[in-house]
Amino acid sequence: MEHPKKALILLSGGLDSLTVLAMAQKEGYLCHALSFDYGQKHRAELNAAQKIAQHFNIPHTIFPLPLNHFGGSSLTDPQLPVPTHRDFTAPNIPSTYVPARNTVFLAIALALAESLNSADIFIGINAVDFSGYPDCRPEFLNAFNALSQVATQKPIRIHAPLLNLSKAEIIQRGVQLGVDYSFSVSCYQADENGKACGICDSCLLRQKGFTEAFLSDPTLYQTQNAPFALT
Amino acid sequence: MEHPKKALILLSGGLDSLTVLAMAQKEGYLCHALSFDYGQKHRAELNAAQKIAQHFNIPHTIFPLPLNHFGGSSLTDPQLPVPTHRDFTAPNIPSTYVPARNTVFLAIALALAESLNSADIFIGINAVDFSGYPDCRPEFLNAFNALSQVATQKPIRIHAPLLNLSKAEIIQRGVQLGVDYSFSVSCYQADENGKACGICDSCLLRQKGFTEAFLSDPTLYQTQNAPFALT
Repeated sequence: MEHPKKALILLSGGLDSLTVLAMAQKEGYLCHALSFDYGQKHRAELNAAQKIAQHFNIPHTIFPLPLNHFGGSSLTDPQLPVPTHRDFTAPNIPSTYVPARNTVFLAIALALAESLNSADIFIGINAVDFSGYPDCRPEFLNAFNALSQVATQKPIRIHAPLLNLSKAEIIQRGVQLGVDYSFSVSCYQADENGKACGICDSCLLRQKGFTEAFLSDPTLYQTQNAPFALT
Repeated sequence: MEHPKKALILLSGGLDSLTVLAMAQKEGYLCHALSFDYGQKHRAELNAAQKIAQHFNIPHTIFPLPLNHFGGSSLTDPQLPVPTHRDFTAPNIPSTYVPARNTVFLAIALALAESLNSADIFIGINAVDFSGYPDCRPEFLNAFNALSQVATQKPIRIHAPLLNLSKAEIIQRGVQLGVDYSFSVSCYQADENGKACGICDSCLLRQKGFTEAFLSDPTLYQTQNAPFALT
């Protein structure tokens, strides 16, 4: 019998990476999850990643990475509040952008993949319903894939199966694969129980996706912040 | 008066990165040093980096990065001894290789450079007198430079001024710039005082460089391990 191929899955604990994990497993990969404790204020995301890895019964590495030392992002800097709504008058890239985050995440994934003797990395980046981050664009993915052909002893391929899907399409694919989205946390300021604020960019994007997919979102919300999309 | 441009210098504490720092400063850059505490056994290297940054009177970030969690390298794994001599019968890439190390270092450098609003990163990788690591080759550098054009909000350039120089040429350039190489530690198993073993790959390469440059190496050695090249 042929050994199944190993894949390393970048698992944030959000909707996208949960879907990617289900897709990789469906393709027959033996999955290993990698999450980052990068000083994000939304710790509920990491808790969700742990629950997802347990649910899928796969090994899970949580790598400590103090990107918050550098500042500059409202996701990690205690001095900068996470925006509570999308400000369409603001410059293109919102304050939630963490400098070079996906480059750093993929670089460390390369290191772990090489150590695990895996030639495949999956990441849930998405260029359709996204926030304008430079490291979510197809040209970023292509450049990283070119790098990962020469950076290690054997070439490693970066898979981004969600790159060109809308949020609604991602959710539809996941539901077809039997994904239970109650495990995932999208909110940038979810509370310790994983309850979402319902008003940040990430909450609004998630709600839009479920609405357009004609599916109901199992997300639980804090207090009275009922999502506008569902009211 | 025009503001000098900021550059981020990857400073390991070794001979190469010390030379690169001197070159960048000579070019008029306002330098900021970045070192990694990545679980390397040779802590003397980090101490050397600190002394170099103090000597040059530049800001210095030491970033904690537990690459030793992944294992697989004799530089970080307590179970694997650092080779005490170059084994020419061994496979091309020695056990001192740390998976994807330069990719991870440069990725984090991108994050810090973007935070500092710097468009220039300097790294001392070298493809001539090197150990066969995949991430010291020109194709690696070219691929990373292509990535760093699209990974962040503004393009960032990776400079590797030593790429095509021999160790002797590097030392000659440094000496021309007034570099004091007693600050640098090359040994993979230097003691806490920075004294070198005189027998590891990295020591032999350094000795060869000074010998070919017809210069004397200010390195201090442990006990009786006098370098063969100088006896």
